[in-house]
Amino acid sequence: MELKEGLEQLEELQRKLYAFRAACSALYLDGVTTAPSDTEQGRGVALGILAGEEHKLMSDPQLGALLEQLWERREALDQVHLRQVEELRRRHARLVRIPAQEYMEYAMLTSQASAVWHQAKEQSDFSLFQPVLEQLVAYNIKFAGYYDPEKAPYDALLQEYERGVDMAALDQFFATLRERLVPVIQAIGAQEQPDDSFLFRHYPLEDQRRFSDYLMEVLRLDRAHCAIGETEHPFTLNFNSQDVRITTKYNPNQVAESMYSVIHEGGHALYELGVDPALDYTCVGGGVSMGVHESQSRFYENLIGRSLPFLQAIYPKMQEIFPQQLGDVTVEQFYRAVNKAQPSLIRIDADELTYSLHVMVRYEIEKQLIGGTLAVADIPQTWNRLYKEYLGVEVPDDRSGCLQDSHWSGGSFGYFPSYALGSAYGVQMLRAMERDIDVWGTVAQGDLSQVNGWLGEKIHRFGSLVEPAQLVRQACGEAFDPVAYTDYLVEKYSRLYNL
Amino acid sequence: MELKEGLEQLEELQRKLYAFRAACSALYLDGVTTAPSDTEQGRGVALGILAGEEHKLMSDPQLGALLEQLWERREALDQVHLRQVEELRRRHARLVRIPAQEYMEYAMLTSQASAVWHQAKEQSDFSLFQPVLEQLVAYNIKFAGYYDPEKAPYDALLQEYERGVDMAALDQFFATLRERLVPVIQAIGAQEQPDDSFLFRHYPLEDQRRFSDYLMEVLRLDRAHCAIGETEHPFTLNFNSQDVRITTKYNPNQVAESMYSVIHEGGHALYELGVDPALDYTCVGGGVSMGVHESQSRFYENLIGRSLPFLQAIYPKMQEIFPQQLGDVTVEQFYRAVNKAQPSLIRIDADELTYSLHVMVRYEIEKQLIGGTLAVADIPQTWNRLYKEYLGVEVPDDRSGCLQDSHWSGGSFGYFPSYALGSAYGVQMLRAMERDIDVWGTVAQGDLSQVNGWLGEKIHRFGSLVEPAQLVRQACGEAFDPVAYTDYLVEKYSRLYNL
Repeated sequence: MELKEGLEQLEELQRKLYAFRAACSALYLDGVTTAPSDTEQGRGVALGILAGEEHKLMSDPQLGALLEQLWERREALDQVHLRQVEELRRRHARLVRIPAQEYMEYAMLTSQASAVWHQAKEQSDFSLFQPVLEQLVAYNIKFAGYYDPEKAPYDALLQEYERGVDMAALDQFFATLRERLVPVIQAIGAQEQPDDSFLFRHYPLEDQRRFSDYLMEVLRLDRAHCAIGETEHPFTLNFNSQDVRITTKYNPNQVAESMYSVIHEGGHALYELGVDPALDYTCVGGGVSMGVHESQSRFYENLIGRSLPFLQAIYPKMQEIFPQQLGDVTVEQFYRAVNKAQPSLIRIDADELTYSLHVMVRYEIEKQLIGGTLAVADIPQTWNRLYKEYLGVEVPDDRSGCLQDSHWSGGSFGYFPSYALGSAYGVQMLRAMERDIDVWGTVAQGDLSQVNGWLGEKIHRFGSLVEPAQLVRQACGEAFDPVAYTDYLVEKYSRLYNL
Repeated sequence: MELKEGLEQLEELQRKLYAFRAACSALYLDGVTTAPSDTEQGRGVALGILAGEEHKLMSDPQLGALLEQLWERREALDQVHLRQVEELRRRHARLVRIPAQEYMEYAMLTSQASAVWHQAKEQSDFSLFQPVLEQLVAYNIKFAGYYDPEKAPYDALLQEYERGVDMAALDQFFATLRERLVPVIQAIGAQEQPDDSFLFRHYPLEDQRRFSDYLMEVLRLDRAHCAIGETEHPFTLNFNSQDVRITTKYNPNQVAESMYSVIHEGGHALYELGVDPALDYTCVGGGVSMGVHESQSRFYENLIGRSLPFLQAIYPKMQEIFPQQLGDVTVEQFYRAVNKAQPSLIRIDADELTYSLHVMVRYEIEKQLIGGTLAVADIPQTWNRLYKEYLGVEVPDDRSGCLQDSHWSGGSFGYFPSYALGSAYGVQMLRAMERDIDVWGTVAQGDLSQVNGWLGEKIHRFGSLVEPAQLVRQACGEAFDPVAYTDYLVEKYSRLYNL
């Protein structure tokens, strides 16, 4: 085979994968936005078939042979093609190691599990979910052995979400967080909380939509390439670097919820919009990992969006849009309100300080579940015990406890740590950025061009060309280190609460 | 091969075709509704690849072999499987007869042609479109020979849009129309026109949206299975019998435009929603032809929607929604206004009476173009001459003349007659319906359940199981005959204009 011909085949395959993914994205997007209510079945049939076609494409032995031939000639490949071959070999190897029968059974199981979990959550009864979860855990332990038999099962799964990260690293990471953050959280418990009642005044949806438009402008999201929609659960969806969608959810009695959704999803969108367009329609044309993605979304949401300079810059416009609701509130009051830290039960509503401890609970449980040292039946009591220990809260029921997240019902074990890692990556990037540019001077002007430019240059443009750990290292000039993150939180919250 | 196994393969193929079509529909729908403006390229790449995959699937020699095996055993097939095999054999045969190279060149040509046509129309200059149109015509003549070398080329193309219809039948059909309708149109020219100025008052969009909701309720369109959206050009799109979308376009200074769009597209939607769900995800699970589809949309739009009993039933609600605009207008005045007949230049804005004559112009030109007796360069002068002859209007420029429709730029030659045929089918169905049920008594009550029920039973539920001509015959109890249509128009407009 000529190298040129092999690379053409490689390109054709990737374009097909792109087309299938775009098709599934469009069907999904339609389903959560404009589709009529009773139309899930037909969409499910189409999505199932497209997933099957993608699986067939990726597990094709001819593809395996092509990838091996290209891999043997890797010395002759440029960086982009080399990364594509690496990535596709990894995906191909992972798929072909799972026996087809097991793969199909597992696909059926996860599609059922979602409905079972929904019902269990509704009835706040973990025992309804337990049998399915036991099967999901068993499959994942087995799959971990297929992915990498030399690794501990949970380490093998972690690779799927954040390559280069293992339990040894995460144990240390979370130990640092626990050690530094738990005392701060406890100390805050004794302090007086700021008044945040004005966040819950009546904020008409039309005004909130105008505010979103303004925020997108401030974030410099180009509306010709990035649309904003409304869904029950906010998300970001990228078709390619020229076509990204974000969604938010408006609550008429809440201004901060949608505000920070837009900024968070906007961070994800800036990442995808910033990928080098030359990588479009290839397997390296999107963000490299969940962790790096969360680093971007949380960077904008928390490090920028919950900073005083940023709020000072946008607050006049906020007051103009919401004169009755915020006319009597100073920006300092607003700043304290959106940075209120209070241990709570629900991860997705958690504040910046306590958030990682919610993640830590899940990490501890997953590690033991996949490690075989915790039975599924014992999840609720372990969950409740850890919430008490780390966050000091009593979990009243399974709905607001171990049934709150959808991840496990989708078969995702090893995903959660990325959320906390992303937050930590972000602070380390901020520190590096502060050495290069006048971050806070420009942010205080409401000008995010330099911040966006730095992240675009150091992170976004690479898409998936550089592995997460290396990307963090080259952007920050040093290996990943959670201390910047814990320092940041301790310092910010000590100041906010006069500790 | 076991028959059972062959039928399973047949089912799998059809589900894949369904999935690809659903994928393309979702991408298309997104593109014309919520996608950001500068995102066409990536969507085009995905759509092109999906079309290529579908082509590969349908032209696969293994599929050909499967279909032949099933065809040989057609005695053993039930009606549904037999129709599926027939339909797929036809599609397969058509594709494999076109050399792959020509198919690709043609696909590229049509995708360019659309942009060229847009530009030519914008500049109102046919000569810009002429070279591309010449190629399109040449390809279609060649393809007609591939489709059916024994037929005259235009007859072969007509089969693609309305099977069973040929030039002999259409010549007679249009001759009848011309003979009966041209005198009426000329007679109306001498009469006083009704006042329709109130249709062009200010109708706020929010109120028009409420009115659309009401119309969908009257049409008995189930919103759990049928959504309404807004696009530049209204259309109906069906994913399957449980999931149909219609769109409309609101003009703040026009009430009838969106009103009749909703009723027209609603008619298409009722057809698709009424197909037997057992046919979902198969090649016979949608409306059988363009002609039958237009029979349904025009049935609701004109025969019901522009009738006095229907307007009397909905007018109180219209006046409630638009009190300032219609409070001083009687339902009889409204009825006359929406039935105003006036020869004009633009087909899609034409009234019920003159509409078919617009179609006839296109038919005459297509017949000669594909027959080789008219050069592309001579289209404008022929067009203008025929508009003068049939409709008595002077065509001032190409934009409002031969460049007004997109069909030819998409490579569709033989499509137009379906519009006129559909109108005629509809009247014949109405006459049969009137023998079975109290059409006007129920419509006058605003109750369309019996009308919908009749069409559901006689037309909708069959999907594509019965060929158009046979479907009309079995629904109406007689072969297609345009006389009912011309009688209806002559009678209606003689009464309206006191001829």
